[in-house]
Amino acid sequence: MSVLTRVHLAYARIEAVDRPEIWIDLRPQAEVEKEAQAIDARLAAGEHLPLAGKLLAAKGNIDVAGLKTTAGCPAYAYTPEGDAPAVARLRTAGALVLGTTNLDQFATGLVGTRSPHGAVRGALDPARISGGSSSGSAVAVALGIVDLALGTDTAGSGRVPAAFNGIVGLKPTRGLVPATGVVPACASLDCVTVFARTLPEAEQALSYLASPSGRELPALPQRAPGPWRVAVPPTAQLGELDEGWAQAYEAAVEQLVAAGAEVRTLDLTPFTEAAAMLYGGAFVAERYTAVGSFVDKLISEGGEGLDPTVAGIITRARDIPAHQLFADQDRLAALRTRALAELGDADALLLPTAPGHPTLAEVAADPLGANARLGRFTNSTNLFDLAAVAVPAGLTPAALPFGVMLIGPAFTDERLARIAALLQPGLRIAVVGAHLSGQPLNPQLLSLGAEWERTTTTAPAYRLHALSTTPPKPGLVHVGESAGARIEAEVWRLPAAGLGRLLGELPRPMALGRVELADGTHVPGFLCEPAALEGAEDITEYGGWRGYLRTRA
Amino acid sequence: MSVLTRVHLAYARIEAVDRPEIWIDLRPQAEVEKEAQAIDARLAAGEHLPLAGKLLAAKGNIDVAGLKTTAGCPAYAYTPEGDAPAVARLRTAGALVLGTTNLDQFATGLVGTRSPHGAVRGALDPARISGGSSSGSAVAVALGIVDLALGTDTAGSGRVPAAFNGIVGLKPTRGLVPATGVVPACASLDCVTVFARTLPEAEQALSYLASPSGRELPALPQRAPGPWRVAVPPTAQLGELDEGWAQAYEAAVEQLVAAGAEVRTLDLTPFTEAAAMLYGGAFVAERYTAVGSFVDKLISEGGEGLDPTVAGIITRARDIPAHQLFADQDRLAALRTRALAELGDADALLLPTAPGHPTLAEVAADPLGANARLGRFTNSTNLFDLAAVAVPAGLTPAALPFGVMLIGPAFTDERLARIAALLQPGLRIAVVGAHLSGQPLNPQLLSLGAEWERTTTTAPAYRLHALSTTPPKPGLVHVGESAGARIEAEVWRLPAAGLGRLLGELPRPMALGRVELADGTHVPGFLCEPAALEGAEDITEYGGWRGYLRTRA
Repeated sequence: MSVLTRVHLAYARIEAVDRPEIWIDLRPQAEVEKEAQAIDARLAAGEHLPLAGKLLAAKGNIDVAGLKTTAGCPAYAYTPEGDAPAVARLRTAGALVLGTTNLDQFATGLVGTRSPHGAVRGALDPARISGGSSSGSAVAVALGIVDLALGTDTAGSGRVPAAFNGIVGLKPTRGLVPATGVVPACASLDCVTVFARTLPEAEQALSYLASPSGRELPALPQRAPGPWRVAVPPTAQLGELDEGWAQAYEAAVEQLVAAGAEVRTLDLTPFTEAAAMLYGGAFVAERYTAVGSFVDKLISEGGEGLDPTVAGIITRARDIPAHQLFADQDRLAALRTRALAELGDADALLLPTAPGHPTLAEVAADPLGANARLGRFTNSTNLFDLAAVAVPAGLTPAALPFGVMLIGPAFTDERLARIAALLQPGLRIAVVGAHLSGQPLNPQLLSLGAEWERTTTTAPAYRLHALSTTPPKPGLVHVGESAGARIEAEVWRLPAAGLGRLLGELPRPMALGRVELADGTHVPGFLCEPAALEGAEDITEYGGWRGYLRTRA
Repeated sequence: MSVLTRVHLAYARIEAVDRPEIWIDLRPQAEVEKEAQAIDARLAAGEHLPLAGKLLAAKGNIDVAGLKTTAGCPAYAYTPEGDAPAVARLRTAGALVLGTTNLDQFATGLVGTRSPHGAVRGALDPARISGGSSSGSAVAVALGIVDLALGTDTAGSGRVPAAFNGIVGLKPTRGLVPATGVVPACASLDCVTVFARTLPEAEQALSYLASPSGRELPALPQRAPGPWRVAVPPTAQLGELDEGWAQAYEAAVEQLVAAGAEVRTLDLTPFTEAAAMLYGGAFVAERYTAVGSFVDKLISEGGEGLDPTVAGIITRARDIPAHQLFADQDRLAALRTRALAELGDADALLLPTAPGHPTLAEVAADPLGANARLGRFTNSTNLFDLAAVAVPAGLTPAALPFGVMLIGPAFTDERLARIAALLQPGLRIAVVGAHLSGQPLNPQLLSLGAEWERTTTTAPAYRLHALSTTPPKPGLVHVGESAGARIEAEVWRLPAAGLGRLLGELPRPMALGRVELADGTHVPGFLCEPAALEGAEDITEYGGWRGYLRTRA
């Protein structure tokens, strides 16, 4: 499908869903079509654009060249000098920006209702909130208008709306994605986030967004080998959840266990105590630092277009004393030490993304209380300098999306995504030969509804042989670490129904068995019968099937 | 000399110098003598106490078991549960505490005059200030009462009084020495420091004070090989200095150049701009966090024993808003980035420790202005998370001590001390054989007035041979990195007059030549004539002369 056609469909979809509150500034269709044609032309000329045709929306507090940045406050509008680095990086890779999206004003809220552009309604239940502050971005993705959307996350703004709308929200390690060209909420905590409908799409976008220049990149924290270690709090520490949410969370825990993860209990107290400090202590003063003098001035001129709840939060932060901030920073440091000790050598903390999903009416009745409750699990993540991945995990009793978060140390973003992938429906399968992307049998996987998840290698315990099959295939053999090597592999996620068909269609001498991957996890994967190896060339030295084929091309 | 005798002499010296303002709480002589006798007994029993008999004073804001901690404010006094870790570590190594010393109240000042216990007068010119806030500690060392003293340093309190009293002040990397058991000034910046009359003594004490537990210890920042690289600002950026101080500073720069250092220019602006923020911005609010509510209460009760200047600084910090602190933290981060870029790959920044040395009368006339001027070069060090070493460097035109600082990245403390050692009078010389500590010819070095500076190794380019001399000596031979190894060496600092005598007394086949040390620097050291090597056993494999002797014992 041409990029131009995708744009046509997107604008038709915008019309069809009738959710004008998603957008602050939707670009004229003709202008976007012109850009789409240019991308189509570049593709036709053979240019490699990895995100070509991916449609993108940017939260209204992120600079997009040619559009005004408003942060949800029309009077605040300024014309940016160009794209924010996050936008520019996705555009360079081929993505196409449709416009800027609605948000809780100045990214101050988790509800999605605090905007003069109107409350953003939930994608699947318009009587419920979308969640915020990245409300329009999340709903634009959830409703299938765009493939990717940028959000920001200080208290949970890139995760709560992902949970409420059944999509993926990656909250990268602080500083991994530049936050320049973004109107700050709390400058020292803000992260640019990405929404997508599937985890691989979100991860692919993050791979273009992340830069080592934003922050000194340490080596990935070492982990001892073994199954993923996931920490969960005692149920009582989750506090009051919506009806049926505790069971939905329990089901996610069981799904991780079934996938081989080791689950242990941790004390959530330092996390929830820190969460309460984000708005309840001195940290909220950073919001005054960002836009306080503007808000004061606007109020003195009548306050046109100011959200009253947001204005109240920001102006009340004016008089918080610095000595209290020092005391809070001290207390936070102590809580962080306790939290990290609780995490110990766990790879991740699994939590519900939010404790419940309120209606628009419930939020209108208690704007501050409803918002505070939503941040119970998300508020502490950036204060503690942790990374998080929010993914859908089944449904609530109301048949609405239920979402969970995996939270882990800074710079474990990729590891968290690996664990989160275990919660995605379907079965992971490792392929090393003719089923690899671009190889002759790859269409079989696609026809079974499989989705590429990642490219990796096996554990260094395998040898690869070129079998005399048609089409040519390799045979993967486990020989142990002393004699083996790493072999290139791809992990695909296969709908449960697809596995039976795959096995049914499997030709001799191929076999499916347990394959150990580079990260120590095991997934089903392609092996071969021993006899097929007789006389077969050992091609281990090429590092994989594609490496071998290249030498024969 | 027994420890008991040292104590007798110290109390006699206390009597003789007649500086009662040094002490807040001097322990009764009889009590200290009892402890001295106990140490003498342990030594007699063969116990190894590396700091045995070293007399120690602790600044009055540091907990010492059995004495009240007051921070220079009698009403604040509390009885600590025990020694602060810094005190306990030196005591465990054999040091003996004489008492707690006077300070600028709540460690708020660089003058040494802000105390109800009286202004501490300069050790060498009682009409001038001692500098502070670690005033009593510095003067107790300078006047030869104690060998070591603990101070603290937030704005420069461990360095300015070192400079004014002609002693060494080590301001370790933040967190290297635990600051628990210390009344905080600015808790996030405070460092425990050490004063001594010589650099090796201060370094030895620091080696017992430092702990890896206080802060995650990264690897020492790598440096490219080559001469020490020392950054200096253009003279104009030093601002107004006391008369003759620019020349004294220039002489220190020339001394480093003469010792082989490479000097380059840096822009001091980010350092001086950050320095002005310590008291001029929101950071001072942390002092209110520490003791503000106590000071408020004491004022409401009449303010007995409060220093009015200190009380004013702390109470004025009460109303600084948190949003300003966030803005200042942002600005500081930007200045720090600029400062580190200015440092580049320089090993250290060389600065005068202070811009001048005021009289007590001058400070009394303008308490805030005089103090602010003193911190021009020291205030930014802890804000930028840098390490510093303050050492004497010649005299001012008034024949008073002139002091300089070497400032470098966190955890380069030892490297800074190495560079600072180049400013100490005398000639460094490397010994590898019979002149090593404890070997037969070591007394010759001592009789020449030499002082041990450190134990190290040569560059990995030498071989060592056992010569057939009397007494037995090794011969050190440079063979290059391909065939050589590291050989244990000691560096001694020899008064200029001693070198001639040493050369004059040098027996054949020994020679003095250029020896390359492990850190890439070159110093004169003992070599030998080629012929002496004929038939001599190659003992390189023992790592040094002492290693070889051990195998023959």
